[in-house]
Amino acid sequence: MKVTIIGLGLIGGSIAKRLKEKKFASEVTGVDSNEQHQRLAIELDLVDSVHPLHEALKNADVVILAIPVDAAVKLLPKVLDGIQNETVVVDMGSTKESICKVADEHEKRRNFVATHPMAGTEHSGPNAAHSHLFDHKMAIICDKNNSADFALKVVDQLYAALNMKVIEMSSHEHDVHIAYVSHLSHITSFVLGETVLEKEKEVKHIFNMAGTGFASTVRLAKSSPAMWAPIFLENAKHVSDVLETYIQNLKNFKRLIDTNDAEGLTKSMENANKIREVIK
Amino acid sequence: MKVTIIGLGLIGGSIAKRLKEKKFASEVTGVDSNEQHQRLAIELDLVDSVHPLHEALKNADVVILAIPVDAAVKLLPKVLDGIQNETVVVDMGSTKESICKVADEHEKRRNFVATHPMAGTEHSGPNAAHSHLFDHKMAIICDKNNSADFALKVVDQLYAALNMKVIEMSSHEHDVHIAYVSHLSHITSFVLGETVLEKEKEVKHIFNMAGTGFASTVRLAKSSPAMWAPIFLENAKHVSDVLETYIQNLKNFKRLIDTNDAEGLTKSMENANKIREVIK
Repeated sequence: MKVTIIGLGLIGGSIAKRLKEKKFASEVTGVDSNEQHQRLAIELDLVDSVHPLHEALKNADVVILAIPVDAAVKLLPKVLDGIQNETVVVDMGSTKESICKVADEHEKRRNFVATHPMAGTEHSGPNAAHSHLFDHKMAIICDKNNSADFALKVVDQLYAALNMKVIEMSSHEHDVHIAYVSHLSHITSFVLGETVLEKEKEVKHIFNMAGTGFASTVRLAKSSPAMWAPIFLENAKHVSDVLETYIQNLKNFKRLIDTNDAEGLTKSMENANKIREVIK
Repeated sequence: MKVTIIGLGLIGGSIAKRLKEKKFASEVTGVDSNEQHQRLAIELDLVDSVHPLHEALKNADVVILAIPVDAAVKLLPKVLDGIQNETVVVDMGSTKESICKVADEHEKRRNFVATHPMAGTEHSGPNAAHSHLFDHKMAIICDKNNSADFALKVVDQLYAALNMKVIEMSSHEHDVHIAYVSHLSHITSFVLGETVLEKEKEVKHIFNMAGTGFASTVRLAKSSPAMWAPIFLENAKHVSDVLETYIQNLKNFKRLIDTNDAEGLTKSMENANKIREVIK
C-alpha cells in the first residue's frame, strides 16, 4: 500500500518505520512543514521521499495524520478534498471530538477513521522514532459508524501491523475519559517539574536527592509543549473539570496535613491505594 | 558484626537480606510489633531470630531503626538507653529534623547517626524485601558533627555494603529539599489516584485507557499509608509550603487553559522541560 504520513515526529516517524518493516507500506511519502524534520526523516530512512501536501495526497492509499491536534483539525478538510474516492484517511490525535465534528461536515466523511494510539514517550521529533513504540499498547477507534467498512478494514490492518490492541468508543466518551487518565497525568507532571525547578534554585540538590519516585512522576514534564498545548486546549472543558477536582482534592489533602489529621490522611491514601486493582 | 533491625518491612527486610549476603552481619536479630511480619521474616530467612526490644539491644554492635518516622522519634531514646557504650544506632527515616532533635537531648547522642537511604518501591512488608533495593542509589547522612567517629565509620561500611553513594547535609536542609523532590511527588501521585478513582466509576475504562504515562505518574499512589502519613506530618511545615506552591501553579495552569492561552501554556511547559537537564 502507498502510505502518506503527514507529520514526521515521534508518532509519524515511528509509524513510518514500522509499516515499512512489516511491509504494510510498499512506499512511504512524508509531509512536514519543518525542513529539519524533512531532512532527518530521509536521512534516518523513515520515509522514501518528502513532498508538498497536494502531491503527497494524489496517489496515496492511506493518509495518516500525525500532527498536533489543532493543526489536524484545520488540515483535515483540505486532506479529504485532495484524496481519491478509495483513499483512507486516519488521524492519530489525542483528542477526538473536535476532529470528528469537522469530519462530519465533509462529503468524504466515510473515508476518515478517527483513532488514538495510546503510546508515546516524553521525547519528540524524528530522532525519537522507533518501530516498537506501539507494541502491545492500546488504540482507540472513535465514532466507527461514521466510517466506511473499507476504511475500517484498512485501519484494522494498520493497527495489527503496529501490534496494538484496538478498542472502540464514541469521540465524546474518549475525550471525557482521556482527560482523567492521560491529560491530567501530564499536567500533574508538568506542574511538578515547574514547581520543583522554581523552588530548588540549586539544581544540584534535585539531582542528588531525586530518588526513583521523583524521576517517574516528573518524567512526563519533558514532553513536547508544541504537542500538548493544543491537546489541553482542544479538550479544555473536560481537562478543566478534572483539574478542578484534582485541585480540590489536593487542598483537602493539605488541610489534613495542616490539621495534623493522621486518620484522615490514612483514609485518603487508602482510597488511592485502590489503584492497585487497575494498574498492576 | 551483630546487627539488630527494628522494623522488618520493605526497608528493614531488604537491609537484613543484603547485610547477611555481604557478610557485614554475622547475625541478624529482628524486632517487630507485627506478629505476621515476625513470622514472615523468619520464614523468608531475612533474620536469624526475633526478640523483644530490650533483649535484641543487649549484645548488638549495630541497631538499625526501620520503622515509621513517628514511631522512630518515640522509640529512639529507649533504644539509646538500652545499648552498650560502643553500639552504633542508625535510623532510616524519610524525615530528619525531628529525630535529630530528640537525639540531641540524649547522653548517647554520639552513638547515633541520622541517615536516609533514598530507595524504596511502592510495595511494603517483608515479602517486598530484596537485597538489591539500594544498589547505586543515594543515601544522606545528616548532622554528622553530632555523631562519633566510630559510629560514622560503621555507617560508612554499612552503606558500602548496601552499595549506596553517600552525601551529607544538615537535617534542616534535608527536610526542606526532600519535601520537594520526594514528599511532593508522593502527594501528587496519591491525589491523582484518588481523583481518577473518584471520577471513573467504571474501572474498566481506567484499565483500558491507561497508557504508560498514567501508570508511571500514579505508581506511588500504591505506597503504604502507614509509612507516609507520619512522614507528611513530621515534615508538615515544609510539605505544606511546597504543596501550596504546587496548588497555586496548578491554578495558574488551569487559568491558562480556561482563557485559551496557548502562548502562556507553552511557556509554562517549556519551563517544566528544563527538568531534562537534571533527570536524564
